[in-house]
Amino acid sequence: MAVHLHEEDLPAGVLAPGPVAVDTETMGLITPRDRLCVVQISDGQGDEHLVRFRVGSDYAAPNLRAVLGDPERLKLYHFARFDLAAIEHYLGTTAAPVFCTKIASKLTRTYTDRHGLKDIVRELLGKEISKQQQSSDWGAAELSEPQREYAASDVRYLHAMRDIFVERLAREGRTELAQACFDFLPHRARLDLSGWPDHDIFSHE
Amino acid sequence: MAVHLHEEDLPAGVLAPGPVAVDTETMGLITPRDRLCVVQISDGQGDEHLVRFRVGSDYAAPNLRAVLGDPERLKLYHFARFDLAAIEHYLGTTAAPVFCTKIASKLTRTYTDRHGLKDIVRELLGKEISKQQQSSDWGAAELSEPQREYAASDVRYLHAMRDIFVERLAREGRTELAQACFDFLPHRARLDLSGWPDHDIFSHE
Ligand SMILES: Nc1ncnc2c1ncn2[C@@H]1O[C@H](COP(=O)(O)O)[C@@H](OP(=O)(O)O)[C@H]1O
Ligand SMILES: Nc1ncnc2c1ncn2[C@@H]1O[C@H](COP(=O)(O)O)[C@@H](OP(=O)(O)O)[C@H]1O
Repeated sequence: MAVHLHEEDLPAGVLAPGPVAVDTETMGLITPRDRLCVVQISDGQGDEHLVRFRVGSDYAAPNLRAVLGDPERLKLYHFARFDLAAIEHYLGTTAAPVFCTKIASKLTRTYTDRHGLKDIVRELLGKEISKQQQSSDWGAAELSEPQREYAASDVRYLHAMRDIFVERLAREGRTELAQACFDFLPHRARLDLSGWPDHDIFSHE
Repeated sequence: MAVHLHEEDLPAGVLAPGPVAVDTETMGLITPRDRLCVVQISDGQGDEHLVRFRVGSDYAAPNLRAVLGDPERLKLYHFARFDLAAIEHYLGTTAAPVFCTKIASKLTRTYTDRHGLKDIVRELLGKEISKQQQSSDWGAAELSEPQREYAASDVRYLHAMRDIFVERLAREGRTELAQACFDFLPHRARLDLSGWPDHDIFSHE
């Protein structure tokens, strides 16, 4: 159970087969402006890998891109839309197929409107995660210890949450609906990158 | 070139093979409350068929449902989301695959924010359609002549507009993105019916 820090790419062979939890840290919410600084990835066996990109990076990262682009490997995210856009834009990879815990939460936790990662982890797993480092300078020369811990905790619980949401979606008869939403997410991310970041393409307006 | 009025179902064999233009008129915008009154359908050869459902209808309509549910027949709509929900709810049929001129317009006519049917028909085809009967009592015992003309005009131009949008989407490199949106529309309609009519499921909130 350790947090591993890597520069510019994931080492080969550090991930077990199967679904991987993925998150990204950037300089902000405007993807083409705010560069990708960190990609976090975990195979759910207890280790988290942080891949850090320096300013001016060419984002070559062949090992990381191979994992993200592998159509056989399910990628687990919280609010996949944002991470998919950042990965598409900077790494040139569509990191699908997708399971998104924010959408799963919206479709099953209909008794609340709190679908933040912190809320879900607390309710489903009884764990507390700190969101303090969320707005911090991810482009700094060295990541601080709290930043590393924050980045790692963002992927730590996604496998366990997915197991619970898979059950709840089935219980509520919404598995198919969730899958359709997951499958649209890479396209939703492409709309964000193509100039429709604030527009609900399905709205009447 | 005529408008044909039918009661409770489409006669068998009145449509040529190929894509059909489809629209619906209801008692209002809240699908489970506001009953389906009329389904308009046209094969693009010049005739429009209006299928009218009386209050208390059982919506059996086997011929109409066969056409709408035929996976080989493309259905052309303007703002498909609404019609798909009404057809799913009242006729029990997923009327896909879909081409939606509102979404095609949003993805290609980026120089305007006017994506109403009237605006598109005027710009693309140079025709004027009246929207006066849009808010009218579609549950009345007899449809008025202006209502029939309005209902028919809502499906009259969809084939011609689709041809133009297919070209424009290709020109702008957005064919795939449009197709992904079209494919999600039946699921978007199901979300409307399942209790998320006003929520953008892809939003952070
Ligand atoms: N409009 C927005 N508001 C807040 N967070 C947003 C956002 N768009 C994308 N995000 C991302 O969504 C994640 C927060 O989700 P939630 O609020 O549901 O916990 C954050 O990721 P990080 O936690 O990796 O920084 C944040 O970067
Ligand atoms: N929130 C909304 N506001 C306006 N029209 C809506 C709507 N939701 C669904 N619609 C439907 O969308 C169609 C109008 O689209 P537009 O404004 O783009 O021309 C109308 O169909 P009808 O014309 O069949 O009545 C209307 O019923």
